[in-house]
Amino acid sequence: MELEGKEYPKLLVRPVVVITTISERGIPNAAPFSANSLVSFEPPLYGFSCSPAHDTWKNIRENGEFVVNIAGKDLGELMHVLETDYPYEDNEIEHAGLREENAKAVNPPRIKEAIAWIECKLEKYVELGDHIWITGRALAAGVKDGFWKEEGVLDVEKARPLCHIAREFFVEDMKEKKYKRA
Amino acid sequence: MELEGKEYPKLLVRPVVVITTISERGIPNAAPFSANSLVSFEPPLYGFSCSPAHDTWKNIRENGEFVVNIAGKDLGELMHVLETDYPYEDNEIEHAGLREENAKAVNPPRIKEAIAWIECKLEKYVELGDHIWITGRALAAGVKDGFWKEEGVLDVEKARPLCHIAREFFVEDMKEKKYKRA
Repeated sequence: MELEGKEYPKLLVRPVVVITTISERGIPNAAPFSANSLVSFEPPLYGFSCSPAHDTWKNIRENGEFVVNIAGKDLGELMHVLETDYPYEDNEIEHAGLREENAKAVNPPRIKEAIAWIECKLEKYVELGDHIWITGRALAAGVKDGFWKEEGVLDVEKARPLCHIAREFFVEDMKEKKYKRA
Repeated sequence: MELEGKEYPKLLVRPVVVITTISERGIPNAAPFSANSLVSFEPPLYGFSCSPAHDTWKNIRENGEFVVNIAGKDLGELMHVLETDYPYEDNEIEHAGLREENAKAVNPPRIKEAIAWIECKLEKYVELGDHIWITGRALAAGVKDGFWKEEGVLDVEKARPLCHIAREFFVEDMKEKKYKRA
């Protein structure tokens, strides 16, 4: 079945993250994103696509730091709060009833309820279409206790990562499977 | 639990795609990628991260076209064949026993066994760390008959998209859930 090119995002299962930043005065901002990817291994670069008008971009331009909080299914119910366009410096973490934790390598806080986190320093950004592709160097990362398997891999069946496909449609409760690699 | 920054990719559930390109002489190449993302809505830009030494990049530089074939769980068993480093112009689609279909808007073929596809024309590329972030404009897209729901969304429970987390660990068999949006 043919689709228009502009409908292509609905074909990708995209991991939901909540990105935390701080304003010049140190007030936290949190916003969900699903247009994001692994970018480079060495150095370890993470990238996400952000509207130029977004408070997240305003804060990153100011101090060059952000934390990527990986959302589990528990955060699904809070998406509508986290993505509400509150006034600048109105703290979405508090609106959503989530708790802040100090990050280790950067100043913005991480979200305690996330299943994992990546602490990033802005590396490079590029305008691509109507968004800015922002890449950050992963200075530190972590995973909630109990969600990391002995084999050195996220326990998806316990952690229950949340992914997005389109509008109100998300995916969750996925199964792990091993496949042979080259 | 703390992790090193370089381990961060293992925290992201990344959609697996097989990207098809053609050489100057028209011989197809197919290779799996999971570092990929939605980049822009208008124009509709798709992006993925590719090693500069990869045949996929060689072909895209030559003719500026590629097809993103979204992998379902059936392609999991073929990952080790698709990612094998065969000599240039050795067709991985044939090695994997998959079938080629003509794309509508670009010259590289798409893979009949994929659950969906995005036909792209190179828009812009940028070196980011040890990879090249390649973005393409989605000229056309499509989904296998039966895998698209009335509501205009991929039927993940039928299509069974394949995602990657680390090494031989993949995820599949996910459930759909609706959440309220802002």
